[in-house]
Amino acid sequence: MMHSAAPMMSGEEVTAFVLEVFPQSVEHGWKVERLDADGIAVSMAIGEQHLRPGGTVSGPAMFALADVTAYLLVLSNVGREALAVTTNVSINFLNKPAGDLIAHGRLIKLGKRLAVCEIHIHNVTGEAMVAQASVTYSIPPRV
Amino acid sequence: MMHSAAPMMSGEEVTAFVLEVFPQSVEHGWKVERLDADGIAVSMAIGEQHLRPGGTVSGPAMFALADVTAYLLVLSNVGREALAVTTNVSINFLNKPAGDLIAHGRLIKLGKRLAVCEIHIHNVTGEAMVAQASVTYSIPPRV
Amino acid sequence: MMHSAAPMMSGEEVTAFVLEVFPQSVEHGWKVERLDADGIAVSMAIGEQHLRPGGTVSGPAMFALADVTAYLLVLSNVGREALAVTTNVSINFLNKPAGDLIAHGRLIKLGKRLAVCEIHIHNVTGEAMVAQASVTYSIPPRV
Amino acid sequence: MMHSAAPMMSGEEVTAFVLEVFPQSVEHGWKVERLDADGIAVSMAIGEQHLRPGGTVSGPAMFALADVTAYLLVLSNVGREALAVTTNVSINFLNKPAGDLIAHGRLIKLGKRLAVCEIHIHNVTGEAMVAQASVTYSIPPRV
Repeated sequence: MMHSAAPMMSGEEVTAFVLEVFPQSVEHGWKVERLDADGIAVSMAIGEQHLRPGGTVSGPAMFALADVTAYLLVLSNVGREALAVTTNVSINFLNKPAGDLIAHGRLIKLGKRLAVCEIHIHNVTGEAMVAQASVTYSIPPRV
Repeated sequence: MMHSAAPMMSGEEVTAFVLEVFPQSVEHGWKVERLDADGIAVSMAIGEQHLRPGGTVSGPAMFALADVTAYLLVLSNVGREALAVTTNVSINFLNKPAGDLIAHGRLIKLGKRLAVCEIHIHNVTGEAMVAQASVTYSIPPRV
Repeated sequence: MMHSAAPMMSGEEVTAFVLEVFPQSVEHGWKVERLDADGIAVSMAIGEQHLRPGGTVSGPAMFALADVTAYLLVLSNVGREALAVTTNVSINFLNKPAGDLIAHGRLIKLGKRLAVCEIHIHNVTGEAMVAQASVTYSIPPRV
Repeated sequence: MMHSAAPMMSGEEVTAFVLEVFPQSVEHGWKVERLDADGIAVSMAIGEQHLRPGGTVSGPAMFALADVTAYLLVLSNVGREALAVTTNVSINFLNKPAGDLIAHGRLIKLGKRLAVCEIHIHNVTGEAMVAQASVTYSIPPRV
């Protein structure tokens, strides 16, 4: 199934938590636009630090967006006690990005030990899918 | 974008073509259930040759379903002259499969040189997603 | 590190175990050529069932070789009680295979919960690497 | 095969070129330690901007190291005219990194249209492999 229970944390709660434990992530310019039982939408305001010559967004910047989107989604569903760690990311770069980006993520598996998210990154303006990723997290046993 | 033009070949045409050039694939028990501008649905009738102890479907059998689904989708969109070859597959095994399977595939990129498909495999009965894959094809120049 | 303790099972032991629990795998024509602290080498005799038009080896056949190679390697290092399950495979198809194949696998991680293998598939004759894969297994807690 | 001709550009040449076309990459603190027919070694000096709470190196920082290592390796082998673009990265995070990192990359395919690199990231001190990646580049036709 698509995992489809309501998340344990709201977009505001998970945002506040991540900014507290991981303040450097502010530099990525991410913002939770939607978080519900269907998944999450996270926007990224593109700045100079994200660009490559020619004005395209760098691969590492798109990876960082996929990574924070999956982390926010997993965290909001498993709760802040669980220190989930990324174990695998497979990312396909599909079309040249331009301007601000939005990532849509959904949980395609939420198990006791592993969670897997599928992430689609689009330009905020325009239909093009610029990147697609799957992100796997290992969820340690609760202490 | 989601690639969304009508395919160049119908489900019947692409099935006939694949069975002609690649008769061994019959053993996989695949059948095109739907092929349109939104993508493709391909079912796989599970037989003894696909099973593992405990009645679960083998990883190679699910890989073969993802592979044939992506091949049928790419072929129907680029035409039979183009001898597309698989260059990368990343597959996540999510939940234990049981019984016949159905794969839903869509083109997330259709370029001149590369095509990328996203594949979701479910049990025919029940909602569980049992596997998710991305499949990349290299499309040689037309001769 | 490269995991480098001696395996818990020999090539003969792990072969006998896999043929017992999973007799269908015989069809793949695999054979353990080497198993030691450095990793494993598994050959695959190519038969009609593995071929595509033009005499190339099918993607699913190479996937099956990568899968059985990783399974044999993990099993020999964690022991037969642990029912490891594949969670992710990423495979790159590099060069056109011809004739019998040999897969070299090594453990790049052996944790309590996850094991990751890197697999290189070559033609038995010739230097070409025909496929490269990483295979992740989830290792359930011992009962 | 392992691609094994001498690169077209030296470590100094490829470093100067990348710093010229892509000055922001300086922030990653990368340095070519070795570049020859066997592959490349690139170190990354870890700074505050790479860290996560607990002193571990962030996933995006390791991705950036894998990405620049593969880019330097491909560029040095295909030459500066070819504007290679990353099409797929699959990365496995294996062990918790600590301190400065070194990435060893080698070309496992160098074709006319695609190049594939295998990257192993280790701590500069200690044997642990902290991440493993495969990186695929599409190489446009020369103009």
